[in-house]
Amino acid sequence: MCKKLKIGVIGLGRIGQIHLANLCRHMPETEVVIASDLSVSTHDIARNMGVQNLSTDASEVIDHPDVEAVIICSPTSSHVPYTIAAAKQNKHIFCEKPLDISLSGIQQTQKVVEAHGVKLMLGFNRRFDANFNQVRESVLSGRVGQPHILRITSRDPSPPPISYLKKSGGIFLDMSIHDFDMARFIVGSEVMEVYVKGDALIQPEIKEFGDIDTAIIVLTFENGAMAVIDNSRKAVYGYDQRLEIFGSKGMAKAENNTPHNTQFYAETGIHGAPPLHFFLERYQQAYRTCLETFVACITKDYPSPIDCQDGLMATAIGIAAMKSLSENRPVKMQEVLESIPSI
Amino acid sequence: MCKKLKIGVIGLGRIGQIHLANLCRHMPETEVVIASDLSVSTHDIARNMGVQNLSTDASEVIDHPDVEAVIICSPTSSHVPYTIAAAKQNKHIFCEKPLDISLSGIQQTQKVVEAHGVKLMLGFNRRFDANFNQVRESVLSGRVGQPHILRITSRDPSPPPISYLKKSGGIFLDMSIHDFDMARFIVGSEVMEVYVKGDALIQPEIKEFGDIDTAIIVLTFENGAMAVIDNSRKAVYGYDQRLEIFGSKGMAKAENNTPHNTQFYAETGIHGAPPLHFFLERYQQAYRTCLETFVACITKDYPSPIDCQDGLMATAIGIAAMKSLSENRPVKMQEVLESIPSI
Amino acid sequence: MCKKLKIGVIGLGRIGQIHLANLCRHMPETEVVIASDLSVSTHDIARNMGVQNLSTDASEVIDHPDVEAVIICSPTSSHVPYTIAAAKQNKHIFCEKPLDISLSGIQQTQKVVEAHGVKLMLGFNRRFDANFNQVRESVLSGRVGQPHILRITSRDPSPPPISYLKKSGGIFLDMSIHDFDMARFIVGSEVMEVYVKGDALIQPEIKEFGDIDTAIIVLTFENGAMAVIDNSRKAVYGYDQRLEIFGSKGMAKAENNTPHNTQFYAETGIHGAPPLHFFLERYQQAYRTCLETFVACITKDYPSPIDCQDGLMATAIGIAAMKSLSENRPVKMQEVLESIPSI
Amino acid sequence: MCKKLKIGVIGLGRIGQIHLANLCRHMPETEVVIASDLSVSTHDIARNMGVQNLSTDASEVIDHPDVEAVIICSPTSSHVPYTIAAAKQNKHIFCEKPLDISLSGIQQTQKVVEAHGVKLMLGFNRRFDANFNQVRESVLSGRVGQPHILRITSRDPSPPPISYLKKSGGIFLDMSIHDFDMARFIVGSEVMEVYVKGDALIQPEIKEFGDIDTAIIVLTFENGAMAVIDNSRKAVYGYDQRLEIFGSKGMAKAENNTPHNTQFYAETGIHGAPPLHFFLERYQQAYRTCLETFVACITKDYPSPIDCQDGLMATAIGIAAMKSLSENRPVKMQEVLESIPSI
Repeated sequence: MCKKLKIGVIGLGRIGQIHLANLCRHMPETEVVIASDLSVSTHDIARNMGVQNLSTDASEVIDHPDVEAVIICSPTSSHVPYTIAAAKQNKHIFCEKPLDISLSGIQQTQKVVEAHGVKLMLGFNRRFDANFNQVRESVLSGRVGQPHILRITSRDPSPPPISYLKKSGGIFLDMSIHDFDMARFIVGSEVMEVYVKGDALIQPEIKEFGDIDTAIIVLTFENGAMAVIDNSRKAVYGYDQRLEIFGSKGMAKAENNTPHNTQFYAETGIHGAPPLHFFLERYQQAYRTCLETFVACITKDYPSPIDCQDGLMATAIGIAAMKSLSENRPVKMQEVLESIPSI
Repeated sequence: MCKKLKIGVIGLGRIGQIHLANLCRHMPETEVVIASDLSVSTHDIARNMGVQNLSTDASEVIDHPDVEAVIICSPTSSHVPYTIAAAKQNKHIFCEKPLDISLSGIQQTQKVVEAHGVKLMLGFNRRFDANFNQVRESVLSGRVGQPHILRITSRDPSPPPISYLKKSGGIFLDMSIHDFDMARFIVGSEVMEVYVKGDALIQPEIKEFGDIDTAIIVLTFENGAMAVIDNSRKAVYGYDQRLEIFGSKGMAKAENNTPHNTQFYAETGIHGAPPLHFFLERYQQAYRTCLETFVACITKDYPSPIDCQDGLMATAIGIAAMKSLSENRPVKMQEVLESIPSI
Repeated sequence: MCKKLKIGVIGLGRIGQIHLANLCRHMPETEVVIASDLSVSTHDIARNMGVQNLSTDASEVIDHPDVEAVIICSPTSSHVPYTIAAAKQNKHIFCEKPLDISLSGIQQTQKVVEAHGVKLMLGFNRRFDANFNQVRESVLSGRVGQPHILRITSRDPSPPPISYLKKSGGIFLDMSIHDFDMARFIVGSEVMEVYVKGDALIQPEIKEFGDIDTAIIVLTFENGAMAVIDNSRKAVYGYDQRLEIFGSKGMAKAENNTPHNTQFYAETGIHGAPPLHFFLERYQQAYRTCLETFVACITKDYPSPIDCQDGLMATAIGIAAMKSLSENRPVKMQEVLESIPSI
Repeated sequence: MCKKLKIGVIGLGRIGQIHLANLCRHMPETEVVIASDLSVSTHDIARNMGVQNLSTDASEVIDHPDVEAVIICSPTSSHVPYTIAAAKQNKHIFCEKPLDISLSGIQQTQKVVEAHGVKLMLGFNRRFDANFNQVRESVLSGRVGQPHILRITSRDPSPPPISYLKKSGGIFLDMSIHDFDMARFIVGSEVMEVYVKGDALIQPEIKEFGDIDTAIIVLTFENGAMAVIDNSRKAVYGYDQRLEIFGSKGMAKAENNTPHNTQFYAETGIHGAPPLHFFLERYQQAYRTCLETFVACITKDYPSPIDCQDGLMATAIGIAAMKSLSENRPVKMQEVLESIPSI
């Protein structure tokens, strides 16, 4: 067997556990040599997966001499410092989204990562979904023609607890950021302007801390395309993840996935399965392919498909969206990007 | 057999011919006693349908002593004068959309119509489409719950000639106006604000006279719902007429109709029929039901389901859309409605 | 307007009323000058459609000097005598299926019809359904390649009353006969052998008079294709009318039609409309196109698309099916066809 | 981590490699301690998966002291001797289908397996497919009501080489046997009678050794249900694996799965993905769940869900099908089952 890539995992929350399970159960070409989480209550989960070294201190992961790559799944505020520390130790980095909520933080990270020549890949896992890939392929191959209208529907089955929302950075950086990245991925051009209409129709109380749960976001791209994203924190029928790109030559359209492909014909009509419940189910394979791609980037020395620049743009669109919502006007991306200090 | 309702038809262009054919071929409870069109070249078409009385003068239709109801299919600018003339003769009126491009014209018409107690019904035929009716029923019955997001996709298979576009009143009053009416019909609330992003991606030359061919329109409703309409003048795959309303309890979704319900499985994949080509095909039954409803309003003395107020609001949203496009900002409906002189 | 084709209708039961309504409401190129039914209770229905001449005697229709074509919708046992009588009067004939339950009766009819040079068209209306036509087109054009397997699902929403069933001629001549005709229409070859497995799973009491309500019918064709038809008298979800033809180059597949094309997404899953309820709804347009084709055959002097030979073969397959069921063995068509006396 | 189940794999052909990859890559709760194949050329594949012990002699696997369970993927003729040998060594057994082509061989095996109290599970992997499970659940829960008609479509994308076909045991024991097991699984009753119509429409030359490539199989069940299976060795559009069960209360229907859930709308119509190419893709997850179930049977001491009796019945239906084809008549299962010598 080939030599296994030695990996350290930082953060064993919901998303950390997904990555850990994929590494331990389905990626025998890797070995998780150490994992960390502030809460020791998560350590047993990792031990049951076969991880022998556990710590409450992320620096033990980063500094571990055997670790060749780190997977950062800790809270957003720690992404930049851990990434920079790992880069300085010449470790490759897979970091969950968003890389940061400040553009200058992202730019600073980018400099360090490039200086040390390590791989950095961001966890925009949806890029590895078979449906969205197929749609993108239709654009790249020219079948769609010149892109005119992109529609993304992205709705969660139920909102997270208020306590989570308060620290989430708001719907745009927490939830819509995936859609911003997807819009760039599909259209293949940069966003020029953002307009948002939104409201708290599900949990009016979140307005108190400036958040919303329902949004329509209009993006205008450099290549002339327009996109509209609709977000909701609560679709009672499940996780709604569809998109379609309409162009001068045709339209490519991705539908939801379902747990099975059967229908029941009753007196009351035809009944089919609702969409897969949430991201764990829907993006199960995408999460795996995403990590496998990261590993392949390292072992076969490919460039990272999702780099700092992608993180920067997704966050910048999120900042523009917040501005548009609060000022009820379209916001040019230039307004946001100009705010970055030239380093 | 019951006594036939005596009808006069004004305007024998594309849409006039649809109504005439429905009356003559499929509505034996009516009789078209006279029809008019400025162009005598259309008169033979009507004669072949069995209309014996033809004129180039609309007033002969309006003044014809046997005529109980008029169908107005002439150019938009004549809608108000013909409607008012007919009302004054105590004739019932079916008038094509838009009733007028000026709000004051519509208000004036409304006064006259009400004063004479005649029925006025506007030709927003899509309200009679089986799919959209089913969706609306889901809202009315409460199955959808509180409406949050309405999405309308409305795309034509190919743009009309430039010569037509120049006189069309622009995409919003010519094409999107159907979608504005549909949005009000489905959501069951009044629009408060309009934001538009649009461009001429298909025929850049139409920008010269201020028109566009691709638009994203965001509407905000009094009941908190938001709607997004996407319009294109050219969908190569055919007439794309879909909508979905997403609410607190579920989502109702109308798909396109197709000429047949078959699929072909080949080595290259599964091939299905494109949507019905254009409005003649897609709304064939809706046009018929629409006219039948008008006739039933008269013979059974029901109130008109689509009245002056509906015409006023659809035009007003169109005016707000034009303003939003040219000023690149959200426009409150109040700004537009306040401009109507109190009569 | 063109001269109207003068038509007489014999039989004003369920199917007679469908044809009458199509003629009177939607086919202004025809005029129903007389109609007959043994039961005077049906006469008012025809009068309300505008038929002025009514009789209890079919021969008054056949002998009426103005009548150019007769539509025969009376019970099966009268089809042959009325057809022969009409042919002898040089009237064109549209006759409901089956032409007869005896092969010699059909052959005798064929001779008379041919001798008088009148058109005879049988009411296998499903041949005019848009879905089935599209599938047939896929075979004719060669897209399907050499046909291998045809599957027809044909299920009624609920069984007719026992009293009707007793006189129906059995499921094969009453219900499956449409599928036998369809199988020949799609495969484009003659049936060589029939095998049936059947049972009375819905109404066991009908076994007493030798009938069944659930059947699997296997047909083998001269060109090598095999077909399987499944029939049920009771599909609780509505009228199930699907078929697919699988060949060396691909498969063409016709799905059910539904009253509308919308879906509802609820917590319990995705709900769509059941198939159109029954033949009146499903074949509404096919019935109309069928009669229009008959009229066009006469006025434009085309050959009838569904002639005596088609009636003969459909009945012969039905007779073979009955034999197969009672003897539980495959029956060669030759066994059945040889029984016809050479006339 | 829990103690790993020690497994030996016999046969490293196509299907053996599937099981081996699942064990080595995705089932860390197991350890493959030894594998065998007559052809050493396959040994490297196993070594690359991490299997250290390789042999050309199956008895080394069976006799290996650490092996707790064997996976038998060698040619059919060896299934019985290897199973019996393993049972005598008190090893649990997972055996590929068919267990044997002779009913007496299966019965003898059953006796030995029961005598040694080991688990025996047969590889009817399709029982673990999410679609078919969902359909079965609809039957078990009573939603379908009394089952009336089962339809199975089971078509391969392309035929195996003639050399394989010659040794395959014929289409019924090689290919349809999966459908026979599925029919019993879904209907939940035993088959009473079998009728087959078949031909070699794709490769006429296989008739020389008595095989066919296209078949319609009618099964009658003890509970009154009827089933029809259609098989083809060559569906140009891919692996076609659908079924539907129609009953007194409704119908449950399983459609094909596709590699992605997107559509392309072009001028030429709507294009979707063909079904997943073949069994490796379609039943990828089912293969895994199947083996996981086998492991759980052992570690949690559940009864095997697919035992000798299931193997016996599937083979017996295959034998009846061969008899029906050659004698062109329905064959009672009793005729076949009576032939088993009472042991």
